[in-house]
Amino acid sequence: MTETPIAAIILAAGHGTRMKSSLPKVMHEIGGRAMIAHVIDATDELKPVRMGVVIGDHAPQVGEFAKSIDKKIDVAVQAPPQGTGHAVMQALPSLKGFSGAVLILYADTPLVTPETLRALADEVSKGAAVAVLGFSPFEPGAYGRLKLDADGALAAIVEAKDASPEELDITLCNSGVMAIDAAFLQARLKDIDNKNAKGEYYLTDIVAIARADGKTCAVIEADEDEVLGVNSRVELAEAEAVFQDRMRVAAMENGATLADPSTVYFSWDTTLGKDVLIGQHVVFGPGVTIADNAEIKPFSHVEGASVAAHASAGPFARLRPGAELKTGSKVGNFVEIKKAVIGDGAKVSHLTYIGDAEVGAEANIGAGTITCNYDGYAKHKTVIGKGAFIGSNSALVAPVTIGDGAYVGSGSVITKNIEPDDLAVSRAKQTAIKGWAARFRKSQEKKK
Amino acid sequence: MTETPIAAIILAAGHGTRMKSSLPKVMHEIGGRAMIAHVIDATDELKPVRMGVVIGDHAPQVGEFAKSIDKKIDVAVQAPPQGTGHAVMQALPSLKGFSGAVLILYADTPLVTPETLRALADEVSKGAAVAVLGFSPFEPGAYGRLKLDADGALAAIVEAKDASPEELDITLCNSGVMAIDAAFLQARLKDIDNKNAKGEYYLTDIVAIARADGKTCAVIEADEDEVLGVNSRVELAEAEAVFQDRMRVAAMENGATLADPSTVYFSWDTTLGKDVLIGQHVVFGPGVTIADNAEIKPFSHVEGASVAAHASAGPFARLRPGAELKTGSKVGNFVEIKKAVIGDGAKVSHLTYIGDAEVGAEANIGAGTITCNYDGYAKHKTVIGKGAFIGSNSALVAPVTIGDGAYVGSGSVITKNIEPDDLAVSRAKQTAIKGWAARFRKSQEKKK
Amino acid sequence: MTETPIAAIILAAGHGTRMKSSLPKVMHEIGGRAMIAHVIDATDELKPVRMGVVIGDHAPQVGEFAKSIDKKIDVAVQAPPQGTGHAVMQALPSLKGFSGAVLILYADTPLVTPETLRALADEVSKGAAVAVLGFSPFEPGAYGRLKLDADGALAAIVEAKDASPEELDITLCNSGVMAIDAAFLQARLKDIDNKNAKGEYYLTDIVAIARADGKTCAVIEADEDEVLGVNSRVELAEAEAVFQDRMRVAAMENGATLADPSTVYFSWDTTLGKDVLIGQHVVFGPGVTIADNAEIKPFSHVEGASVAAHASAGPFARLRPGAELKTGSKVGNFVEIKKAVIGDGAKVSHLTYIGDAEVGAEANIGAGTITCNYDGYAKHKTVIGKGAFIGSNSALVAPVTIGDGAYVGSGSVITKNIEPDDLAVSRAKQTAIKGWAARFRKSQEKKK
Repeated sequence: MTETPIAAIILAAGHGTRMKSSLPKVMHEIGGRAMIAHVIDATDELKPVRMGVVIGDHAPQVGEFAKSIDKKIDVAVQAPPQGTGHAVMQALPSLKGFSGAVLILYADTPLVTPETLRALADEVSKGAAVAVLGFSPFEPGAYGRLKLDADGALAAIVEAKDASPEELDITLCNSGVMAIDAAFLQARLKDIDNKNAKGEYYLTDIVAIARADGKTCAVIEADEDEVLGVNSRVELAEAEAVFQDRMRVAAMENGATLADPSTVYFSWDTTLGKDVLIGQHVVFGPGVTIADNAEIKPFSHVEGASVAAHASAGPFARLRPGAELKTGSKVGNFVEIKKAVIGDGAKVSHLTYIGDAEVGAEANIGAGTITCNYDGYAKHKTVIGKGAFIGSNSALVAPVTIGDGAYVGSGSVITKNIEPDDLAVSRAKQTAIKGWAARFRKSQEKKK
Repeated sequence: MTETPIAAIILAAGHGTRMKSSLPKVMHEIGGRAMIAHVIDATDELKPVRMGVVIGDHAPQVGEFAKSIDKKIDVAVQAPPQGTGHAVMQALPSLKGFSGAVLILYADTPLVTPETLRALADEVSKGAAVAVLGFSPFEPGAYGRLKLDADGALAAIVEAKDASPEELDITLCNSGVMAIDAAFLQARLKDIDNKNAKGEYYLTDIVAIARADGKTCAVIEADEDEVLGVNSRVELAEAEAVFQDRMRVAAMENGATLADPSTVYFSWDTTLGKDVLIGQHVVFGPGVTIADNAEIKPFSHVEGASVAAHASAGPFARLRPGAELKTGSKVGNFVEIKKAVIGDGAKVSHLTYIGDAEVGAEANIGAGTITCNYDGYAKHKTVIGKGAFIGSNSALVAPVTIGDGAYVGSGSVITKNIEPDDLAVSRAKQTAIKGWAARFRKSQEKKK
Repeated sequence: MTETPIAAIILAAGHGTRMKSSLPKVMHEIGGRAMIAHVIDATDELKPVRMGVVIGDHAPQVGEFAKSIDKKIDVAVQAPPQGTGHAVMQALPSLKGFSGAVLILYADTPLVTPETLRALADEVSKGAAVAVLGFSPFEPGAYGRLKLDADGALAAIVEAKDASPEELDITLCNSGVMAIDAAFLQARLKDIDNKNAKGEYYLTDIVAIARADGKTCAVIEADEDEVLGVNSRVELAEAEAVFQDRMRVAAMENGATLADPSTVYFSWDTTLGKDVLIGQHVVFGPGVTIADNAEIKPFSHVEGASVAAHASAGPFARLRPGAELKTGSKVGNFVEIKKAVIGDGAKVSHLTYIGDAEVGAEANIGAGTITCNYDGYAKHKTVIGKGAFIGSNSALVAPVTIGDGAYVGSGSVITKNIEPDDLAVSRAKQTAIKGWAARFRKSQEKKK
C-alpha cells in the first residue's frame, strides 16, 4: 500500500465556558504542554502536507500559538460557531488542490495517538470515503452509536436521541475524529445542511452522504482514554492522569525504576535513561534529561535541567532551568541550582543556592552557601575552581572567581577573587561577654 | 410546605477502642476538623432550634468541644452505654417543649450532608413519624435491611441475623441516621425495651412501634460514602479520602486547576479563587484563602495564610499562620513565612525565613535572609521598606527597620535601623592566606 | 500435629532481561529491601533447618548477598538455565540427609507470607507428597490450571496450551510455589525429563510423578497479590504498591493515624508507636523508629532515625541516619539532622543543618544555623549545652563546645568554645553609606 498524502483540520473554536477560565480551553496544559499542541504533535508524526486550525474570534492567540509550533498551519476563523460541519467548511480553502486523506481532529481531545491517526488514514487509502474513530465507553449514554454492516463497514451514525432500543444497545460510539477522502470532502461537504433543532451543520452527516453516494465508510476503534474530550477542569485532570500513566509506563519499560509511579509527574518532553532511579514525589517540568544510572531522590522538582550519569539530586532538591549536573555530582536537600554547571563529582549537599555559576569538578560546597548573583539590576557569575572547598554558611558575592583547590573559611563573605590553593576568610573576631546570658535570662524572667 | 422546626441529637458516647487511641474517637479529624464538628456543621446549615450531644463519661472534653462550636448545644451523659435507644433517652429532657423533626445523628458518621438531613426532616413535615436514611452498600452483609411497602414507605427494619433469605436479598440498608417526629418520640421512646441478647435499647425499634401505631415511616437514600461510619484508623483514612475528593471536585468546578487533584489536601475551610493553579503535592492547613489567578506550586504547605491575586508560592514553600502575600508577590523555594505581610510585587525567592515582619511593595529579599525575630523570650518585629534590597545571606536582628529603597550588603548582620536609600554593610575584611589550602591538604593526606 | 522440619530452595537464577537493568533482577528492592531478602525473611519465620539459593553464573553477588542475610544458606549455581526442575536439581546436594518439607520459592515472587508457607508445609506433614500454591487470577490466561479431584486434592497441573476448553474454564492456577516431601523429592526429582519443545526440565512435572506413584498432592490458595512475580519495572512497581498497602494497614491497625495512607512510604523495617500522626507525603528509609504520640508532618524524609514520644519533625524535615530526636523535641521546616542527638524539648525550627552534634535539652537553635562539621577530610563534633540559645544564621565551626545556657549572637561564626552562660558574638560593625542605594539605582537606570 502506497502511503496516501495526509492533511489535517484541527477544530479549536469552542468557548470552553465550563472551564471557568480566562485562558482559552485548548491552551490549558497536559504534561506542561497546551492541549492543542499535543494534537499538532500527534499529527506531525504522520508528516502531513497541509494542516488547518479553526479557531473562534474570541481567542486569536490560539492561532498564533498553533503557527508557532508548525509554521505550515493555516488558521481559519469560525464565527459565530454553527457546528462541526460549518467549522470544517471554514478550513476547506486551505485544502485546495490537496488529494489524500483529511484528518478531522479536536484540540480538546489531546490524547489521540499517531498510530490511531495512521490507521484512520490507511482506511481512506484503502478506499473508504470516511473512516470514523469509534470507542466503547463504559456508559454509552448520549453518544452517537456506530451502526455496522454485516461485513463490519460503517452503515450509519445514529444519534442517541434518534436511536431505537436495539440501536441504543450498540456500545460502539462516535468519537467525532475522522479521516475523509479529500476529493469527496471537497465535493460533498457543502451538502450538509442545518435543518435540525439547533440549526447547526453536523459533520457526522457526511457518513450518510457517503453511503447515499454508494461509498464505503470504515470504523477504527480506540480506547476510551484516547478520545477523552476535555470540557471542564475535572476532565482536564482526568486527561492529565491518563497522560501521566502513559509516560510512567514508557519510562519503566525503558528501564527506569519509579519507586511509586503514581507520584512522579512527567513533562511531555522528559527524557530518562536506563537504570535511572526516581523516588516518590518527583515533579518534572519541561526540558529535562536524566542520564543512565542517575538518581532523583524523593521530593524533587526538576525543570530545564540535565543530570548526567551517576549524578544524584534530592531529596528536596530544586533544579531550575540551566542546571547541569555533571557525572557523579551530588545535589542534596534544600538546594536550588539555577543556570549553573555542577562539575564531575562535585557536591552541593545542603541548604544552598547556586545560581549563574560554574562549580569545578570535585569541589565541595558547604551547607548554607549562597551565590549572591543579583544586585537588583543584573545577574553576575560565580566561578568555583576544581577541588575548591567552600566553608559552610559562606556568601559568594558575584562576579567572583575562586581558584582551583582554594578554601573559603566558614561564614565568610567573599567579595574578591581567591587565588588557587589559597585560604580566604572574612570573619570578625569572636568575643565573649562573661555571664551575659545568665543576666539576660534573669532580667527577662523578672519582666514576666 | 412550611419548614418544620428542627432539633438534633448527636450520639457521641462510643468508646472507639478500635481506634487504639487516647484521643476520643469523635475528636479525630477529617480535613483538619474533628468528626463531631463536621456533624454539628452539617446540622447547623439547617438552623436547628435545639441540639443535644450525648457523650460517655470517659470523655467529658467532647461535650466542652461541642459547646465551643455551638453554644446552644445541651450535653447529656450516657453511662454506662446501653444502646442507641438508651442514648437518645438521655437527651430527651433537652427536647422538652420542642415540636418538629428530631434528627438522630452520629458523631462518627461525619460525611452526612445538609441536603440529606433536610430531605429526612422534610419527610417528617410531610407526616412521617420516622424517616430513616438508607443506603445500598456494595456488600450488605450484617447491615439491617430496610423493607418497603408496595407504596415505597418503610415497612420494617429487619436485622440481618433475623432476616429470611428473601429479606437478605434486599440491598437497601439502615444507616442508623433518622428524623423522628418530636411528639411521637417523646410519647413512645420509653416503650423501646432491652429484651434482647445484649440487653440493650435499640433505637431502630422505634420503626416497629410507629408502624404498630398505624403511623407512616419513610426512607431517604444516600450514597454509601455519605454514611461511612468511622470505627478504626483505616475507616478514618477512607472518610478523609471521600472528604478530600468532595473538596477537590468543588475546587475544580469553581474554576481552579489542580495539576493532580489526588495529591492536593484541603482543610475543611480552604477557599480558592478562579483560575488558581495548584501544583502537585500541596497540603492546606486551616484558615487559607487563595485569590484569583494566584499559584501554589508543587510541594507547598500552607496554613492560616492568604495569597492575593497573581501572587505565587513554592515550590517548597511553607506559609504559616499570619502569612499574607499581597498582589503579585512571590515566595520561592525553601522559604518560610510566618506572621508577615509580603507587599505587592515583593520577592522572597530562596532559603529564607521571614517571621513577624512587614516587607514593603517591590522589595527584594536575597537568598538565605533570616529575620532574627526571637531572643529566647519575646518575638520582635522587622520592617522592610518599599523597594528595599536585602543582600543574600543577611541576618536582620529584630526589632529593626530598613528604610524604603535601602540596600543591605550580602552577608551582613543588621542590628541598627537603616535610613531610606542608604546602603548598610556589616562585613569583616576578606583576607587571604597564601597557599594554606595546599599545605592543609598535604598535611591531611599525610595523616591517612 | 508435630511440626515437620522445613527446608527451602529459593530459585534466583533468572536473567531478568525485561528489567533492562545491570542490577540482577532479584536485587531490585521492595520497601528498601532486595526482593530475594523478602523471600529469605518470610522463610526464616518458619525457622528452616536448611536453605539453598540457586543463582545464575552471571550474578555471583546474589549468592554473597543471600549468605549475608542468613549464613546457613547454601548457594548453588545453575548454568546454563534449563528450567525450574533443573534448578532444583542443583540444590539437591544441600538437602542431603534432610527429611521434612522442602519449600520451593522464587526470589522474584517477594510477597509470599510466612502463614502461607506454613500452610503449604503443613500439607506435607499431613501426608501430601507435593503441596502447590494456587491462586485465582483475574485473567487466568496462560497460567497452568490446577485440576482437583472430587475430594479437593490436586489431580494434575495442566498447562494452558495443552488444556481442553473445560480445563481452561478452571480459574485456580499454579503459582509455582510448592512444598515437597524431602524423601520423595530426593527419590523422584531425577525422573523429570526435558522432552518438550524448549528442552527444559519443568518442576511442575513432579505432580504427575507423585500421582503416578499413588501419592497425594494438595493445594493451598493464596491471594493473587501474594504470588505476584516481578519480571519488569512495571511489575516491580505493582509489588511495591502491594507491599506498601500491607505496611499502611498494619500501621493504622496498630494505632497510627496516616493523613493519607497512599502517600506514606514505609521501609520494610519501619516501626511506629501508638497515636503517632503521619502527615501526607512522608517517605521512610530503613532503620526508623517513631515512638508513641510523636508526629511526622507532611513532606518529610526520614531514614536511620529515631523519634521519641511527643517529638515532632517537619514539614519539610530531613532526618538522616543517626538522627535521634528526644522526648518532646521539635525539628521544623527545611532542617536536616544527621548523626546528631536533639535533646528533650530542644527546638531546631528552620533552615538548619545539624550534623555530628549533640544538642542539649531545651536548647533553641535559631533559623539558618549551620554546624560546620567537615573540613574536607574529617568530620568534627559540635556540642551544644542544655538551654543554650543559638542566634539565627550562625555558623558553628566544629570541633566546638557551647556551654549550658550560653547565647550565641545572630550571624556569628563560632570557632572557639563558649563557657556556660556567656554570650559570644563575632560580628563586624554595621556601617552606613548615606544615599548609596539611591545613587546606585540612578547609575543602573542610566545603563538601560
